[in-house]
Amino acid sequence: MAAEAEKGSFLTALSRIYPPGSLHTDPAQLAAYECDGLTVFRARPVAVVLPTRREQVEATVRLCRDYGVPFVARGSGTSLSGGAVPVPGGIVIALNRMNRILHLDPADRLAVVEPGVVNLQISRAAAPYGLYYAPDPSSQVICTIGGNVSFNSGGAHCLKYGMTANHVLGMKVVLATGETVTIGGSSLDVAGPDLPGLFTGAEGQFGVVVEVTVRLLPRPEAVRTVLAAYRRLDQAGDAVGAVVKAGLLPAAMEIMDRLAMDAAEAAVGAGYPRQAGALLIVELDGPAGEVEADFRRLMEVIAASGPTEVRLAEDEAERQRLWKGRKSAFSAVGHISLGYLVQDGVVPRTRLGEALARIEELAARHGFRVANVFHAGDGNLHPLILFDDRSPETVERAEELAAAIIETCIELGGSITGEHGVGLEKRRFLPRLFDPVTLDLMRRIRRTFDPLELANRGKVFPDEPAPPAGIPAGEPAAWGQAGVAVPAGAGSLAEPTPVPGPAGRGRDVR
Amino acid sequence: MAAEAEKGSFLTALSRIYPPGSLHTDPAQLAAYECDGLTVFRARPVAVVLPTRREQVEATVRLCRDYGVPFVARGSGTSLSGGAVPVPGGIVIALNRMNRILHLDPADRLAVVEPGVVNLQISRAAAPYGLYYAPDPSSQVICTIGGNVSFNSGGAHCLKYGMTANHVLGMKVVLATGETVTIGGSSLDVAGPDLPGLFTGAEGQFGVVVEVTVRLLPRPEAVRTVLAAYRRLDQAGDAVGAVVKAGLLPAAMEIMDRLAMDAAEAAVGAGYPRQAGALLIVELDGPAGEVEADFRRLMEVIAASGPTEVRLAEDEAERQRLWKGRKSAFSAVGHISLGYLVQDGVVPRTRLGEALARIEELAARHGFRVANVFHAGDGNLHPLILFDDRSPETVERAEELAAAIIETCIELGGSITGEHGVGLEKRRFLPRLFDPVTLDLMRRIRRTFDPLELANRGKVFPDEPAPPAGIPAGEPAAWGQAGVAVPAGAGSLAEPTPVPGPAGRGRDVR
Repeated sequence: MAAEAEKGSFLTALSRIYPPGSLHTDPAQLAAYECDGLTVFRARPVAVVLPTRREQVEATVRLCRDYGVPFVARGSGTSLSGGAVPVPGGIVIALNRMNRILHLDPADRLAVVEPGVVNLQISRAAAPYGLYYAPDPSSQVICTIGGNVSFNSGGAHCLKYGMTANHVLGMKVVLATGETVTIGGSSLDVAGPDLPGLFTGAEGQFGVVVEVTVRLLPRPEAVRTVLAAYRRLDQAGDAVGAVVKAGLLPAAMEIMDRLAMDAAEAAVGAGYPRQAGALLIVELDGPAGEVEADFRRLMEVIAASGPTEVRLAEDEAERQRLWKGRKSAFSAVGHISLGYLVQDGVVPRTRLGEALARIEELAARHGFRVANVFHAGDGNLHPLILFDDRSPETVERAEELAAAIIETCIELGGSITGEHGVGLEKRRFLPRLFDPVTLDLMRRIRRTFDPLELANRGKVFPDEPAPPAGIPAGEPAAWGQAGVAVPAGAGSLAEPTPVPGPAGRGRDVR
Repeated sequence: MAAEAEKGSFLTALSRIYPPGSLHTDPAQLAAYECDGLTVFRARPVAVVLPTRREQVEATVRLCRDYGVPFVARGSGTSLSGGAVPVPGGIVIALNRMNRILHLDPADRLAVVEPGVVNLQISRAAAPYGLYYAPDPSSQVICTIGGNVSFNSGGAHCLKYGMTANHVLGMKVVLATGETVTIGGSSLDVAGPDLPGLFTGAEGQFGVVVEVTVRLLPRPEAVRTVLAAYRRLDQAGDAVGAVVKAGLLPAAMEIMDRLAMDAAEAAVGAGYPRQAGALLIVELDGPAGEVEADFRRLMEVIAASGPTEVRLAEDEAERQRLWKGRKSAFSAVGHISLGYLVQDGVVPRTRLGEALARIEELAARHGFRVANVFHAGDGNLHPLILFDDRSPETVERAEELAAAIIETCIELGGSITGEHGVGLEKRRFLPRLFDPVTLDLMRRIRRTFDPLELANRGKVFPDEPAPPAGIPAGEPAAWGQAGVAVPAGAGSLAEPTPVPGPAGRGRDVR
């Protein structure tokens, strides 16, 4: 069959780029790359490559371009929006072996790293110089910087320090056209439009990030972590408002509800108060004098907010324990539920209380338990919908609830994603946020870098054509059409066909 | 003549969009729009339009597109890089009458404004709610937000609060294609690539910004302003390093040298110390307790840095006086020199001392006096080259020195612009910062929004074709070619011909 022959020729060419052990085509090996952190979406790639050098990425992307094969670049696959799910019929470029810290400049406070470097590794490497890398997604012990850049990852401390975009100074990117560009530099002051900003958050649709220059910050001299327990969730929300009103800018302000606390307790024994209905964690950092002054003010504000209990982290170990519960909250719900879906909505901070009340109401109406964990300072909600994932019908109903929550965020004047990205999961909501002309503009920008729409095809844009002629993921079908541009507005092309997940619990990409 | 007929037809069509008094074609009226803050570049537009509504901008841009006429959008014209200089043969869209604050939301801390709103007006409107708009270019009493957005303007307090890009949540833009897009939203958390970031700093080359949503910050509870005088410039520079090392993040850290102080003294009687060789101004702001704690630390650091004098602003009037000298420094040099050129280089903060020494050496070698005023915290230098602008030969030599200073910044690992933009003045340096593939990428992005390269044509890109067929600015020549795309790589097209400035002191666009 012609398509099979072309697939063979593509794979042969690919094998010339990679030494043994760096190119996987065996189904057992491919299975590990079928999904990311949002396990309800699954698809099997035709091959997985593990480059160690930029030149291999360039050769791979050019080959994909010449054969018209879609590709997905990924690191540890911690995406919670399905952003790293393979494109059926395409390949995965796994960047975990490009994991070197190429340069660390303590004087100018920057590091140049490869995309497969784990977020926390940067801070570890910078620690001897009293520096660290600020953005701290909950998955920072495992997630890689390439993914952080592609999804503009946030984290608890982004309230004060900003998202990934605020810390990326420059990068090298292999565009989907096969060209390598160097954008930004070693300072946030750059000439012209903010290209690093454009590429940060592009969800892998422009090409493959192969090098990132990040800025490092001096480790704060002092840190104060306060935990306040409340009877009700709205009281914790009000406390956040009062802290902001007092003019304080904590490094982090996080809220967990009872169910989230139960999960954290079951998973890591966080030792949170047993009777509280909600928990507020506030952390201050900075020069010692400043932190002490702000701390006194914070304690006044919290005392006036009606807490049932206030705890202070007396040392670093205690602080780490407080944070461990919060940072493991997503995975922790696995201890109290078979399956879960985490949402990532944003509402104006002033409408947090309203949003939480409506989520509670929606959860009751849909018949699910919903645990709430959120970055309260910037209105970024993470409702975790708990369900029994052994029933496909239940999974579908949970997704309906997730959609209803996102609709609520939009109605309240918010956004569909704070830090997890649009990915596969939320692409259908994009037209609710942007008018057709603006969506078209976004599409045109994408096509500037990727005329064939090969890079992470099918994500972000609701009508992004499914592979018009990708390599069939098992079943026989035509593929190839190398070099043929995806027709504009080809949104009605068929979606990829389902591939059953290994444990039978996944759903395929839509 | 055909070209003249087409020009007439274009102007007639234009006159249908604008009521009397909103379309200028009279040379006396046009003269006011011939240059911006960098007066050495001048060019005369064919017409100036003053829209009051978005629909007029849309109609104007579509007309320009249909006739192939370049346009420059501008506000108060305070650009210091020639960014608002007209394109010869093109029109100017002056947005000063689109100056309404459309919406101010104190709860969600944002304002929606038209592009012609003056920077400081936003803070004035927000003041009753205890809020303000943070980016504060020195020209903030006159410069407009549309220009701030297009050039990603900074200001003294951007050390702590970031540039304009950090404060723009969303915008409406009439693209050069005539389409209007709405990008971003009312929160910094948006889905997908950072489009507001891309448009902030695009120097008017994508289209015309017609509405901006900015965030507002609570006015800091307390402010402390400290002035320290030093014998030598390098001592002031060392003091900045010590403040940063102490972990303090002042709202502003500014240095002025003796010559800049003399200028400020002559212009506004700033009352700065008469004997000092350099001046450091440090301002702390935030919650009262935090500011007091940081202030004690700051005073220790400054005491150890060898100042000859330390002054505190005891009240708001005194603080305003200290700042007035600094903020008027650029215009103040007019009091001690007939002409001046201000540069806007960036060097890594750790190489500030080296940069200053080399500037001094260059100034001596080229035979000019150079006053230095700079945002010391982020390595953004503003050397002011003083010269007698009555001699064209002197102007040229001053520009040679300016170029040598910029070359030095590049050599030291910095950038050609911190906040003034590339504009006309620095476009020839762009290839020193970006490789050809990356420059081509920037060009492709521009053409996505402006296929004919009509919007602020001839700025930023060194090889951006001069108007291939613009309306002749006085002399007869062919123009028109409506709808014809600018050929890629048409960089060798003739540059515009000189138009003498009204006072004979200007040089025309190169």
